[in-house]
Amino acid sequence: MKIDVLSLFPEMFEGVLGQSILKKANEMGKVDYNVVNFREFTTNKHNKVDDYPYGGGAGMVLQPQPLFDAVEELTKNEINQPRVILLCPQGERFSQKHAEELVNEDHLIFVCGHYEGYDERIRTHLVTDEFSIGDYVLTGGELPAMVIIDSVVRLLPGVLGNEDSPIKDSHSTGLLEHPQYTRPAEFRGYQVPEVLLSGNHKHIEEWREKEALRRTFLRRPDMLKSYPLTSQQKKWLKEFEEQK
Amino acid sequence: MKIDVLSLFPEMFEGVLGQSILKKANEMGKVDYNVVNFREFTTNKHNKVDDYPYGGGAGMVLQPQPLFDAVEELTKNEINQPRVILLCPQGERFSQKHAEELVNEDHLIFVCGHYEGYDERIRTHLVTDEFSIGDYVLTGGELPAMVIIDSVVRLLPGVLGNEDSPIKDSHSTGLLEHPQYTRPAEFRGYQVPEVLLSGNHKHIEEWREKEALRRTFLRRPDMLKSYPLTSQQKKWLKEFEEQK
Repeated sequence: MKIDVLSLFPEMFEGVLGQSILKKANEMGKVDYNVVNFREFTTNKHNKVDDYPYGGGAGMVLQPQPLFDAVEELTKNEINQPRVILLCPQGERFSQKHAEELVNEDHLIFVCGHYEGYDERIRTHLVTDEFSIGDYVLTGGELPAMVIIDSVVRLLPGVLGNEDSPIKDSHSTGLLEHPQYTRPAEFRGYQVPEVLLSGNHKHIEEWREKEALRRTFLRRPDMLKSYPLTSQQKKWLKEFEEQK
Repeated sequence: MKIDVLSLFPEMFEGVLGQSILKKANEMGKVDYNVVNFREFTTNKHNKVDDYPYGGGAGMVLQPQPLFDAVEELTKNEINQPRVILLCPQGERFSQKHAEELVNEDHLIFVCGHYEGYDERIRTHLVTDEFSIGDYVLTGGELPAMVIIDSVVRLLPGVLGNEDSPIKDSHSTGLLEHPQYTRPAEFRGYQVPEVLLSGNHKHIEEWREKEALRRTFLRRPDMLKSYPLTSQQKKWLKEFEEQK
């Protein structure tokens, strides 16, 4: 996979792309990163990338020219147009299903604005996808781009070894993960639940299933709406309701 | 504000904390960052921070000792206990209202796991908040910590100058932002809407209000549920419904 990032702050990406799984995926040859400062593509004298909004108002707006030219340069040898992803608060809410879809692409281009708005022609004629990672205000598209890159690259076949794989990925099983404990069995007076020390695997599995359901019920009841409950799970839910 | 981060990958933070608004806020004396590798707090021979889960299963679980000791060291001179924030998929969904609340704190401590699960005693006896930034699977808590730090630090009084402030923060007005245009008025045959070039401020304001509503209607109808609509806005919504 080839990943290009267009940003006015390319140094922001160094620490994140140069560590852990994202670095490893690159060293394994699974992914190439290319972070480009799109200011290099300006054609005006002062390398200006933004200008005042038509119609007035505060703030600046990114001009179309540098971004159009940058994307054209990055795709000039390609037959298929790659996905061009704009990070913005107005975008579709990014979720695991998008990561699972994007991992099948050969080439992704991320467009990161910073403070500025985007000229609407960038949205309508250049990008293929607009994503928001959540309902909070961030300074730029750089962190959202890193979040999406991490969520996609870790899904590339062979990237996650056994030692890296999480015990259970909460957002891929449909329930939140059950509580986990490790050594010591007693820490500052706080004990590990006895069932986990019992060696009885049937009881342990049952406890884990019940506690995963309890945690989901207490913290993210919305996730249960689309979850296919067994009859035992329905009984547990009734029990949790009564304890509430 | 004092921000401590506990992570096994402290280098991931360098690019992000050393650029743009987060750097500026630090230089202005508004915030101090301190990224600590909690492996330094291990008391075992091999500086191990995790161990196998009780009850069996794949993956590793972060042990309580290094994190408890690290938080104790970081807070030893404080009278008030600071917020200790765990980043995890099971956490409460982070939103702008949490950023607006956290900005009032003097000291925040972020706990970032990486692949591993957390021993439950960390959740129940050490941390005060658990946050998730969205329904997608990430490799660690580092990117979520950076996202939350960015959303909070930019709200510290005096950090955002006029030149940095976004035109309108989508998630603080209740509607998505209206389309923006800047020069040139024609780019590759794509025109700026005439109203924006008209100089008629009443028409421009009306166009912007309508297009902000249209965009929210098309992309995030859920945001309209809690939005107090004027009678004109209700008429526009009817119009959009009919055009759909």
